[in-house]
Amino acid sequence: MSRFLDKKYSSLDAYVPGEQPQGKNYIKLNTNESPYPPPPSVAESAAKAAASLQLYSDPECRELRRLLADELDVGVENIILSNGSDEVLNFAFMAFGGGGAAFADVTYGFYPVFANLHHCPSRIIPLRADFTLSPDDYINKGSLIVIANPNAPTGLVISLDEIEYIVKSNPGAVVLIDEAYIDFGGDSAIPLIKKYDNLLVVRTFSKSRSLAGARLGYAIAQSGLIEDLNKIKYSTNPYNVNSMTLAAGYAALKEKDYYARANKNIIAVRDETVKRLRDSGFEVLPSNANFIFTKYPGFDGKMLYTSLKEAGILVRHFPGPRTGDYIRVSIGREDQMDIFVNTAISIVTK
Amino acid sequence: MSRFLDKKYSSLDAYVPGEQPQGKNYIKLNTNESPYPPPPSVAESAAKAAASLQLYSDPECRELRRLLADELDVGVENIILSNGSDEVLNFAFMAFGGGGAAFADVTYGFYPVFANLHHCPSRIIPLRADFTLSPDDYINKGSLIVIANPNAPTGLVISLDEIEYIVKSNPGAVVLIDEAYIDFGGDSAIPLIKKYDNLLVVRTFSKSRSLAGARLGYAIAQSGLIEDLNKIKYSTNPYNVNSMTLAAGYAALKEKDYYARANKNIIAVRDETVKRLRDSGFEVLPSNANFIFTKYPGFDGKMLYTSLKEAGILVRHFPGPRTGDYIRVSIGREDQMDIFVNTAISIVTK
Repeated sequence: MSRFLDKKYSSLDAYVPGEQPQGKNYIKLNTNESPYPPPPSVAESAAKAAASLQLYSDPECRELRRLLADELDVGVENIILSNGSDEVLNFAFMAFGGGGAAFADVTYGFYPVFANLHHCPSRIIPLRADFTLSPDDYINKGSLIVIANPNAPTGLVISLDEIEYIVKSNPGAVVLIDEAYIDFGGDSAIPLIKKYDNLLVVRTFSKSRSLAGARLGYAIAQSGLIEDLNKIKYSTNPYNVNSMTLAAGYAALKEKDYYARANKNIIAVRDETVKRLRDSGFEVLPSNANFIFTKYPGFDGKMLYTSLKEAGILVRHFPGPRTGDYIRVSIGREDQMDIFVNTAISIVTK
Repeated sequence: MSRFLDKKYSSLDAYVPGEQPQGKNYIKLNTNESPYPPPPSVAESAAKAAASLQLYSDPECRELRRLLADELDVGVENIILSNGSDEVLNFAFMAFGGGGAAFADVTYGFYPVFANLHHCPSRIIPLRADFTLSPDDYINKGSLIVIANPNAPTGLVISLDEIEYIVKSNPGAVVLIDEAYIDFGGDSAIPLIKKYDNLLVVRTFSKSRSLAGARLGYAIAQSGLIEDLNKIKYSTNPYNVNSMTLAAGYAALKEKDYYARANKNIIAVRDETVKRLRDSGFEVLPSNANFIFTKYPGFDGKMLYTSLKEAGILVRHFPGPRTGDYIRVSIGREDQMDIFVNTAISIVTK
């Protein structure tokens, strides 16, 4: 930290992303990436866009928003695109978090960082002992509510009825549902946006569209909230999504069959992985995402993470009283998960 | 605006980017893009990166920072990359603008937007009547100072001695020199960063590297300031630069000859354009950028903009008492500037 940094940021703890090793070849199961590359049409489309990079990208992202609106059965005025979903989450905390931000104690680790950055008073709401969320804890909060559904790192979901119950009981505050993992399980809240002006749904192309490296996220809501988010966008970075990413996203939306197959594979491999781990004595939360959250009774989570890393397998460990026993493991290809399961079993039974 | 937007942003006026028409084919001289596409190696490199988009980009941007550090003769710890230079400008206003931000009355229109967004008290310092900057106006300001060099939309420069005079006299505040256009004229302040811990230089690949659509900017400073900016980055969007853009930027840095030729062309066409306009009675500020700022005595700037647009030529007009008489014209290809000059002359002499 330099002596010039504004004192209001001096105690800020930044987000720590999962390791992105550039050298050693790990089986990389630590950042919930898809094990499947995007289809070739995505790279072709991006390359075509790359030939005219001397021109700015469309700040309104019109073509991609139009195609996405068709797919989601919403209007173009209901969509804002962003440089990964982190960017639009950041905009939402800025725009709507002034009165405070309520979120679970075990959820995406970036929420408290956004809250601290923008000095939104955090209201941390503990999940139940089994990591499920109690909707009654979110009733009439009167401040921004942020819920990941499916939740990370647990993989657990809440139902559409529970979401509606929360949204309806908070008419004076924005309820943000972060659906980064929704294509792997659970019901999307997007159909509810027609009914509620305080509902904001955030999504990403990073996981189920194999585009983590392209940085493409979006939010869906009634036009009032989208206008607010655009006001922040146009005050920070109007050309926030580059031309190649717009082209890649457009091509990806045209490849429904490819992604349906890939995501079906991921779900099948996940369910098989869960079964094998449970058969060997691991506890695994019922996952609706492209990762699992698991522990071996009596075995330290950090030690399991470290032993797996030494064996060439990168998973994620979140220190803390409620999560420290667990590791979060992204679902890779079948052969990778086979190695992971065998290695994990041999570590805990050694 | 919705009823949910934080009141502190309700009076915010967002930045209005230049028009990016997606339909009609204009001669587009309004957003200071290069008329030359990037060399084919850039698209090839981006396409290669696009084939593995399922993986996150490197949040530390190590490879590109290393190559850039070599080129600029600084350390990797002196560089932060960003999603266009607007993003790192935004970070700088956040990190260092709390005590206020001083900038010219006629300069990049985004500075007052960043200042308002982050509630940095603005200290607007008028340029002289001829649009030159008086260094003495920036002495001992005690708050963030932001100077575009070359300045936009004027194209005028200040000398390296003048920059050092300002930096040296403000030891308690960050002096940000925005060098978006430095490859078209003027001396870079980068050599001064070794000497001054309060100097921050911001640059972009958008103009002289033909990568506006890729969104790639960077800042150069001593490691303390870079750490501060990284703290903001990792608290908003750790993966802020996508894999394709990192690859495109890397390939671009390897194409020194291509860009040297392209930028030499732009400068030659600019100087010829200035000469022809002056010969026809236009007043043109001496430009050190890839655009010119010009007016025809007695002819309204808005009307000139509108007439050019009707004739299929898009330039930029900035309303306001000091700039309203002028238009800003990006330097296109020789044939485009020929059409522009002929059309402009015929409009004002009709």
